[in-house]
Amino acid sequence: MNALSLDTVVLAENKQELVILDQTLLPGEIRYLHLSRTEDIREAIYSLRVRGAPAIGVAAAYGIYLAVAGLEETDMDRFCAVFREKKAYLNSARPTAVNLSWALNRMERVLDAERDTLSVEEMKRRLCQEADAIRAEDIAISRSIGEYGFSLLRHGDGILTHCNAGTLATAKYGTALAPIYIALEHGWDDLRVFCDETRPLLQGARLSAFEMQTAGVDTTLICDNMASITMKRGKINIVFVGCDRVAANGDFANKIGTSGVAILARYYGIPFYVCAPSSTIDLSIPSGEHIVIEERPAEEVTHMWYAKPMAPEGVKVDNPAFDVTDHSLITGIITEKGIAYPPFDRAFARLGIV
Amino acid sequence: MNALSLDTVVLAENKQELVILDQTLLPGEIRYLHLSRTEDIREAIYSLRVRGAPAIGVAAAYGIYLAVAGLEETDMDRFCAVFREKKAYLNSARPTAVNLSWALNRMERVLDAERDTLSVEEMKRRLCQEADAIRAEDIAISRSIGEYGFSLLRHGDGILTHCNAGTLATAKYGTALAPIYIALEHGWDDLRVFCDETRPLLQGARLSAFEMQTAGVDTTLICDNMASITMKRGKINIVFVGCDRVAANGDFANKIGTSGVAILARYYGIPFYVCAPSSTIDLSIPSGEHIVIEERPAEEVTHMWYAKPMAPEGVKVDNPAFDVTDHSLITGIITEKGIAYPPFDRAFARLGIV
Repeated sequence: MNALSLDTVVLAENKQELVILDQTLLPGEIRYLHLSRTEDIREAIYSLRVRGAPAIGVAAAYGIYLAVAGLEETDMDRFCAVFREKKAYLNSARPTAVNLSWALNRMERVLDAERDTLSVEEMKRRLCQEADAIRAEDIAISRSIGEYGFSLLRHGDGILTHCNAGTLATAKYGTALAPIYIALEHGWDDLRVFCDETRPLLQGARLSAFEMQTAGVDTTLICDNMASITMKRGKINIVFVGCDRVAANGDFANKIGTSGVAILARYYGIPFYVCAPSSTIDLSIPSGEHIVIEERPAEEVTHMWYAKPMAPEGVKVDNPAFDVTDHSLITGIITEKGIAYPPFDRAFARLGIV
Repeated sequence: MNALSLDTVVLAENKQELVILDQTLLPGEIRYLHLSRTEDIREAIYSLRVRGAPAIGVAAAYGIYLAVAGLEETDMDRFCAVFREKKAYLNSARPTAVNLSWALNRMERVLDAERDTLSVEEMKRRLCQEADAIRAEDIAISRSIGEYGFSLLRHGDGILTHCNAGTLATAKYGTALAPIYIALEHGWDDLRVFCDETRPLLQGARLSAFEMQTAGVDTTLICDNMASITMKRGKINIVFVGCDRVAANGDFANKIGTSGVAILARYYGIPFYVCAPSSTIDLSIPSGEHIVIEERPAEEVTHMWYAKPMAPEGVKVDNPAFDVTDHSLITGIITEKGIAYPPFDRAFARLGIV
């Protein structure tokens, strides 16, 4: 099996279904879901069957296309009204990743810009093209991030990553793991990857360790709380993480625990890089204080993947799905346009990120 | 149920069995094991049915007593030979906590000091008395640590703890959680405890959250990787952790992840206290570099408590059970003799810890 051939999110050839790899079943089972109803696509996003900020964007773009593709409607006003209603519904699936609303807004801009010149049927084809373009661009962006990230690696490096920002989190290549795929293409076989398991949903254990092992990379799984000793033992040369939203000052939201990894990396003097498609950078918010953190159900912590509770019944649980890492802890932000170094506001402008 | 009435480790009234609360079954089931064979007592220590450095010490003391109590031997030389053989066997159960060897050595000192004046039968009774004394002293020590720790608390404080250093980790009261039990005795009902779940074996979720909730304390369970955001949100005023071994300079080993918590506490400016019976302080080692870290099986990480694997088959796993926290990250070490502040070597001497 080739890790990069695991298509995370694609439109079926019949253009009537979204085909997603159900990531809640990994690594035990590789099952693809064929979804056409908007409710099912939203559920797949909410329940993390498809997850990872870029992949959520691609799923949302196809999701809004499919939400209107089957309408037997010829009036553009009514078509647009349904589009906006379905868009709001899909957008409510998860609050933290900016890519969800970014992709939906981009689809809506096509609607707004071309509604006076296209018929409803033409508009449907145009929306499908736009969703295809978002997916194709995501692949190109991930590849470019991978190449910039690869330029930072040295032979034999130990790389720590948190959660999953690999090919499973994007249309292909990933963000934080993309540099490793590029290194493999260059024939490097001496990198070592350490995957934080990433509680509560274990995306590191189930997804990152799975795709890195499948790709043939020397992969070691650790519990989140082992990152400190692993760094102390000198096993980590660089940290790569993905992100769900970056503020104008460089503060960024990513999977819960990322800020802790950044603080440890600072303490041990290890470079800490954030891999971010420029679509993830939200210059409309000045700092991380403005990022809404999704709070998820207690059962994700208390019951894990099984019915048997691992905590006393009724105990209070905090379960924030993300945290915000202060920009002062970041060595650099790797985008498809280049690597931004502090101060990030100026670096973003210099890279043409607006 | 009263949390403090959960006897962790006691000698049965018939003095022929060690009665331990099987902590691997908590919080779902409260089952006491009655063990008499040395193999079973060692297995209970290795498999963490009884765990926590002080409780391990008590279990080992009774374990070595029971190992020789049934011997039909009247020759003191042969009795002592069996004692030493069983002692080495029990001592090999776990390498990191000093209390295991500390308790066994203390039992052996009784043997060495009184072998010329006692008969074998008298020696058996003497060893039982010594084990009883170790348990009684452990309760007194825990209570004293609780009172010193209580002196650091203010009404309404949020307390973060890692792993379980509560009544379940000792004969009674615990170390890190003892200050909270003392606060309850003073009628304080406004403390808030946050329990790191503590992967891979979830002692925080299963044990600390269980005993704190049972005691009626406002208890919130978090995943280990949520400690950073919980501190950032201002919910934590003080950190209390237990420890398994303290070196002469204050470096200490405790459950994996403790060093990360200490680094986060330093970053966020939160006081970080280690609760340590003086028996845990090992002046024979100058620093933490000399502490052996127990490495445990990969399956603890990949399979959790169930048969279904949560990681790709055959993936490499690091599973150190402990880490060492640098003394520079410690605000103070709370012992039964008082609170040691840096520099710790001088503070230990001043407190009479030799």
